[in-house]
Amino acid sequence: MMELKEYFPMWEKLTSAQQARLLAASDKRHFERGQIVHNGLTDCTGLFLIRSGQLRAYTISEEGREITMYRLFERDICLFSASCIMRSIQFDIVIEAEKDTEAWLIPAETYKGVMEESAPLANYTNEIMASRFSDVMWLIDQIMWKSVDRRLANFLLEESALENTSRLNITHEVIGNHLGTAREVVTRMLRYFQNEGMVKLSRGTVELTDMDKLRNWNNK
Amino acid sequence: MMELKEYFPMWEKLTSAQQARLLAASDKRHFERGQIVHNGLTDCTGLFLIRSGQLRAYTISEEGREITMYRLFERDICLFSASCIMRSIQFDIVIEAEKDTEAWLIPAETYKGVMEESAPLANYTNEIMASRFSDVMWLIDQIMWKSVDRRLANFLLEESALENTSRLNITHEVIGNHLGTAREVVTRMLRYFQNEGMVKLSRGTVELTDMDKLRNWNNK
Repeated sequence: MMELKEYFPMWEKLTSAQQARLLAASDKRHFERGQIVHNGLTDCTGLFLIRSGQLRAYTISEEGREITMYRLFERDICLFSASCIMRSIQFDIVIEAEKDTEAWLIPAETYKGVMEESAPLANYTNEIMASRFSDVMWLIDQIMWKSVDRRLANFLLEESALENTSRLNITHEVIGNHLGTAREVVTRMLRYFQNEGMVKLSRGTVELTDMDKLRNWNNK
Repeated sequence: MMELKEYFPMWEKLTSAQQARLLAASDKRHFERGQIVHNGLTDCTGLFLIRSGQLRAYTISEEGREITMYRLFERDICLFSASCIMRSIQFDIVIEAEKDTEAWLIPAETYKGVMEESAPLANYTNEIMASRFSDVMWLIDQIMWKSVDRRLANFLLEESALENTSRLNITHEVIGNHLGTAREVVTRMLRYFQNEGMVKLSRGTVELTDMDKLRNWNNK
């Protein structure tokens, strides 16, 4: 548990009493790839500080369609899984483990208690929220003004960088869930990309065959 | 200037030294309807605490198209006009006065200084940001999953409630800028609404003639 402090930002700005409270209340959690970490507003487990792995935050429409909001990586703090710490957080978000993930769970009540008395922690929390806000503003810009083909090109390049491979094991449906687009649209677009020589499709995989062309496509 | 404290939330949770700093640095500002209050990231005037009037926050695409993010009213604090107080705020937003507006300007540096030492102010700032975050998440839900006709019906009802009239003085282009939609699309949709008996169009005005039907349209 002592390891927590090496991952927790601004740890040294907390008093030793505050540090002790966080340490005593926190717990290590393991999530398998695909497991749901947090499910909507009524669920207020606590904050997750990621030790290793990858989380995806997304929303779901009434009809069950998904769109990815942002992702969280090592040393990131997942704030909205503790939405009850602020009454102004009034939206549903789902968080799933995209890779096997190790994280510390800091209970919402403990974090809230320390944040209420610690200006450094409250200010740090502000920075976390501003950072997610920037992600979401970027997303609005994308869905409002960029065509789906450019967003698809960008998504493929991002995935390839995250997975460190040019051969992605991903279905058209999963891509659709990231982009908030129907599977059929993704399939049509990927076939078009294949004709343009940018990807090569086979069952369950998308291989990026011309990264430069994809990059230009995204920036066009 | 003493009036500021009656509008500033959680004023009594600040120390008298902090109160004095905020009072000494703050200034009253007047904006005419249509005036730009804040223009993008490089502009970091400070926070505006609204005494009366109405502000609109929106973003602009590279091609100059607009979409409204949220609005601010009496007693609201406009935080992102002081984007430099947090380094994680990485997006451009434009804020304009939608009505003649009186506001206190609190310089960014002063606010930041007090926030860094005051847990109550930092926590309050968190609540402001969470509230805007909720607005923006609502917007994503709208633009992703709701058709433009439903968003238009909702917008007309909202405008009518804000202006307290069923006869809106608004052009199709301005409506398009709120919704992030081309003027032509708005015109087509409004004509359709007119045929359905929900609105009556004349030069520069949209009159809502069947509120119930508009409400059902929005919820359908």
